Amino acid sequence: MQPFKRVVICGVGLIGGSFALALKAAGLVGEVVGVGRHASSLDEALKLGVIDIAATDWAEALAGADLLLIATPVGQMDAVMAAAVPHIGPDTLITDGGSTKADVIQAIYTHLGEHITRVVPAHPIAGAEKSGPSAAHAELYKGRKVVLTPLPENDSAAIDRVRDAWAACGAHIHSMTPQEHDRVFAAVSHLPHLLAFGLVHDLAGRANAEQLFKYAASGFRDFTRIAGSHPEMWRDICIANRDALLAELDAYLTELAYLRALLTQGRADALETLFAEARTARNAWAEQQAQ
Amino acid sequence: MQPFKRVVICGVGLIGGSFALALKAAGLVGEVVGVGRHASSLDEALKLGVIDIAATDWAEALAGADLLLIATPVGQMDAVMAAAVPHIGPDTLITDGGSTKADVIQAIYTHLGEHITRVVPAHPIAGAEKSGPSAAHAELYKGRKVVLTPLPENDSAAIDRVRDAWAACGAHIHSMTPQEHDRVFAAVSHLPHLLAFGLVHDLAGRANAEQLFKYAASGFRDFTRIAGSHPEMWRDICIANRDALLAELDAYLTELAYLRALLTQGRADALETLFAEARTARNAWAEQQAQ
Repeated sequence: MQPFKRVVICGVGLIGGSFALALKAAGLVGEVVGVGRHASSLDEALKLGVIDIAATDWAEALAGADLLLIATPVGQMDAVMAAAVPHIGPDTLITDGGSTKADVIQAIYTHLGEHITRVVPAHPIAGAEKSGPSAAHAELYKGRKVVLTPLPENDSAAIDRVRDAWAACGAHIHSMTPQEHDRVFAAVSHLPHLLAFGLVHDLAGRANAEQLFKYAASGFRDFTRIAGSHPEMWRDICIANRDALLAELDAYLTELAYLRALLTQGRADALETLFAEARTARNAWAEQQAQ
Repeated sequence: MQPFKRVVICGVGLIGGSFALALKAAGLVGEVVGVGRHASSLDEALKLGVIDIAATDWAEALAGADLLLIATPVGQMDAVMAAAVPHIGPDTLITDGGSTKADVIQAIYTHLGEHITRVVPAHPIAGAEKSGPSAAHAELYKGRKVVLTPLPENDSAAIDRVRDAWAACGAHIHSMTPQEHDRVFAAVSHLPHLLAFGLVHDLAGRANAEQLFKYAASGFRDFTRIAGSHPEMWRDICIANRDALLAELDAYLTELAYLRALLTQGRADALETLFAEARTARNAWAEQQAQ
């Protein structure tokens, strides 16, 4: 593919920083400009070679840019778009790294209407409990999925170029509608994060929390790994995808009510059947993932 | 420590098999006799060198034994003790590997009263989603915790010898009352297993299960790893520790009701605070574990 001359990354943490490093490693970018709220993050990203230029304002950052990636927590994207739009040129492509799509697309229609043919929303499935520029690495997207949720107004050439950029980072590209995307990720990502945060919060507030944590072992470690995730990012995701997440939480509460009934009634056989069905499904999934 | 001449293992899977292999590796056992429900497991354990002798009846197995480890799922321990007790000699030490203690101790008082001075209950904290003789390995207990819940009637020499046997497997030895043990593990182990089984079961039953699993990623993988655990073993644990588990489940349902209220009310700040508290506790725990 044709290299980008100037790529602007707003949010130089795990998602944005890794995108920059992957394009650099592929030799597909002339210079990378970082924009962000925190001077300290921009300085760190500069020192680590994640970005080449730390921009102090949008006009400076976007001059001559052929691609803008918005990789902030989704709760900031509305404000970022409002600030950036006066300085976006007529040839600049725009994509994002948001974990929810309906809310980001709402912000796109609100602020970026004049550029809508060139705004292609994306969600790279590459979460990690680490965050910040130091967590970024060129291999993050290798073999991972990136879900595009193209808009009806998009130019097909813009979709292709954004797809190629993510693919050049090593990702496998998938497409969905924004609504489908938000329902699927409420179930397999947002709900598990909420549940893990909830369990750790519940136990950490107990009088005997120290004793409990002392005897927590590998099962607890893996179950709660995602409770180490970035609080602000997950606050934004939960609020942005609230309706789908509440639907998933309620489905899960129904499941727990059923499990509770099996326990109180001592229905050992039904419990074993349920556990066995879960194990079969979990193992089949893990085998597919391994292939 | 003085080696054992003859160790009998009832249940030659992950827990029992690893105990046998660890004692062998330490040069602390003359011969290991395996007893079990499944001839195929005993054959496999023989072939893998986990045991030296596969016994067809309890009288044969226990003749001259100086240690019996009961390492079956906890739901079978009552029947195992009833079958074994006529053949237990006056010098045979007894321990177990059960993940719950109040129910195992109930069975001990019911069946092993005449040997009570030499029955020292234990729980090795070394779960894994693998099971069976092929999952056993000599290093399983290295650096892991084993919780002893000694009985008031125990001889101190019997406690010391059982402690030394587990310590010889590489474990760190802790002591608790059975009630304390069951409450702690309901919180940090049994509940997370129930929650993981429940989530996978919930999703696997959906019309779009295939699509959901397709987009599940590393967060889901770790959160649900324990849903690959042994269904019969976890059925027994849930039933055996039902009261403590229900108390933990209800505490968690209260936490989820609170999270649900924060979501429906859009209380972003309170969500972020809760997530941040969970992350701080989770990271502090992980750092301690790493040390």
